[in-house]
Amino acid sequence: MLNFDLYTPARIVFGRGTQGKIGELIKPHAKKVLLHYGGGSIKKSGLYDTVVKSLNDAGIQFVELGGVVPNPRLSLVHEGIALCKKENVELILAVGGGSAIDSAKAIAMGVFHEGDVWDIYNEGLDIKKALPVAIILTIPAAGSESSGDTVISNEETGRKYGYGHPLLRPLISVMNPELFFTLPKDQVANGVADMMSHIFERYFTNTTHVDLTDALCEATLRTIITNAPRLLDNRKDYDAWAEIGFAGTVAHNGLLGMGREQDWACHNMEHELSAAYDVAHGAGLAVLTPAWMKYVWKDNPDMFVQFSINVMGVSKGIRDKEEVIREGIARLQSFYRTMGLPQTLEGLGIDGSRQEEMAQKCTGHYYGKEGAIGGLKKLKWQDVYNIYQIAR
Amino acid sequence: MLNFDLYTPARIVFGRGTQGKIGELIKPHAKKVLLHYGGGSIKKSGLYDTVVKSLNDAGIQFVELGGVVPNPRLSLVHEGIALCKKENVELILAVGGGSAIDSAKAIAMGVFHEGDVWDIYNEGLDIKKALPVAIILTIPAAGSESSGDTVISNEETGRKYGYGHPLLRPLISVMNPELFFTLPKDQVANGVADMMSHIFERYFTNTTHVDLTDALCEATLRTIITNAPRLLDNRKDYDAWAEIGFAGTVAHNGLLGMGREQDWACHNMEHELSAAYDVAHGAGLAVLTPAWMKYVWKDNPDMFVQFSINVMGVSKGIRDKEEVIREGIARLQSFYRTMGLPQTLEGLGIDGSRQEEMAQKCTGHYYGKEGAIGGLKKLKWQDVYNIYQIAR
Repeated sequence: MLNFDLYTPARIVFGRGTQGKIGELIKPHAKKVLLHYGGGSIKKSGLYDTVVKSLNDAGIQFVELGGVVPNPRLSLVHEGIALCKKENVELILAVGGGSAIDSAKAIAMGVFHEGDVWDIYNEGLDIKKALPVAIILTIPAAGSESSGDTVISNEETGRKYGYGHPLLRPLISVMNPELFFTLPKDQVANGVADMMSHIFERYFTNTTHVDLTDALCEATLRTIITNAPRLLDNRKDYDAWAEIGFAGTVAHNGLLGMGREQDWACHNMEHELSAAYDVAHGAGLAVLTPAWMKYVWKDNPDMFVQFSINVMGVSKGIRDKEEVIREGIARLQSFYRTMGLPQTLEGLGIDGSRQEEMAQKCTGHYYGKEGAIGGLKKLKWQDVYNIYQIAR
Repeated sequence: MLNFDLYTPARIVFGRGTQGKIGELIKPHAKKVLLHYGGGSIKKSGLYDTVVKSLNDAGIQFVELGGVVPNPRLSLVHEGIALCKKENVELILAVGGGSAIDSAKAIAMGVFHEGDVWDIYNEGLDIKKALPVAIILTIPAAGSESSGDTVISNEETGRKYGYGHPLLRPLISVMNPELFFTLPKDQVANGVADMMSHIFERYFTNTTHVDLTDALCEATLRTIITNAPRLLDNRKDYDAWAEIGFAGTVAHNGLLGMGREQDWACHNMEHELSAAYDVAHGAGLAVLTPAWMKYVWKDNPDMFVQFSINVMGVSKGIRDKEEVIREGIARLQSFYRTMGLPQTLEGLGIDGSRQEEMAQKCTGHYYGKEGAIGGLKKLKWQDVYNIYQIAR
């Protein structure tokens, strides 16, 4: 086990009716907030009215900024920063999924940053201060409700960058599984693929003597795999949503990766897909993850045997490592297929024309830096290219 | 799954050499601290010198108060409160195990409480403020390094009471498994029994649809059961200690009990043993837990079947529920025996003379209140008495 520093301050307020408490939850922390969200869905569902009433009842003033889109954009972040400065906002309340939250975090740190907030992403600058962020989660997927991470797309340069800092960990995250009942099937599936990937990125490691986090990762993955298919037939299954929603938070609050060298190659490879083709992040991960597994398992077969047996339920009796691993990967692909996720890049609507470019961007080669991604296996751009090829 | 509110703000700084960082970790939060600890062991081991050097290097002033004993006492808490007020202490640094930490938390809230701090325990008063507490953990067991709980013994009345509040959650907890190398065997075993009980108290529930926390509880229990025996032969096994130490924190930070009705009968019953006979908390739990299981399993056999199979590794093939459960309990007792823990009250040096009194104190009957303890099965004083009888 490696040394680690675990910091999970976000207060998770979970369950039926909790969205109506947001005003009272925020009250000790702010008198004026920015209400930040996406499109009209929260207005149609009545959630917007509930939030506004709760803020009003608690005597909290607010200004609002809607219009967050998937793969949230820098231009809206700029707008939010200007608004917060002008209106002396003390806290940002994101109502939505990972995109609204990531955008809120960008605004939260941008308010105190002299110069363009994009520089923080681009240059990995250390921040000293950020506004507190509170959340009402409407899509369980990104885990951004508990993490200190944010991913923003710069629509001018076509680049999508992540940034993480403890100051960006949300103050309060409200999660009511009932709010997930209206999600369309593809968003359910994409969310599930994303949260599973957050665990995979931490789970697949060469670090030894990590029994506890191994077992916690496996427990969380099995819970997701068992409960997600229940949502295909009944998207109003509160119990299944409660497991999935809670699992999505646990997946990405940091705990499961403590003491382990982490990987993150699949996320890096997927960010290139999303930036180039604007595909759904989870769908991209569902395509790339099995391809990555097929390419890297030989670097640590025991880890993949463990995954196949403990997570995918492959029989220990098979003995032959390669057979066990191939069966484990096949079962994962079969699970993704059951969830209606694409199996190939082609299925994502991506042809082969930009794979070399994406691979080179992914590792920095394209920008003149000879980098590598991944932990379990270090991947250079040629490796990434090969994985894109496997995923075609 | 029940609605829940999860708040785990304690920053866990984990691994080799971390105790030397304490000054730098505290520096942003306080200029003057109370250094609170037990006996001479931290002086003998050199830990005291490391801490003093680290505080000096960071320019942090300190006053000190040693003398914490197991089942920490109210009188020393009073002394600490007076010292903190006189010296304008801004943070309490506990160096030790659960006793030093619980004592530090009592002082931390006592500083701001008008009147006797014991009233907070006795009457369950709501607190508004507490000094921050930082920790260097030397005994993994109580989980107090991440919890908001404190247990104090009033040596005048012979009563031992617990209290919990989010404001008592530690700010920073430093944990270096190397500091556990010198623990005597009985403290290793007691600590393991205590952390397992923290999970059992959350795990055994009648709440349904709690797949994720079920699986996380089982994962953590299995990790403890696998790694603890390694310490019997080699108490300098860093890897095993890292698992046990981390598991002890996860066991009691709150996560594993979210959304579940919890039990806590065994802890309540054990507090009476400790108060009456000053036995080690973990040893008392190891005696009472199997007795409790034998008395209550019929109220929720499926929960105990799940425990027996998923935690204790009993074969699913046995089919007969009672047989599976009895085998599961027997395996747990066998594990405790392997760890050198006592099997009976007699083995703890407790005769039958005060069992009725303890049972009546435990549920409040003795004090004229007709209460019950437990969640999975509500236990009145007669039930508690029966469990003490089974444990004889």
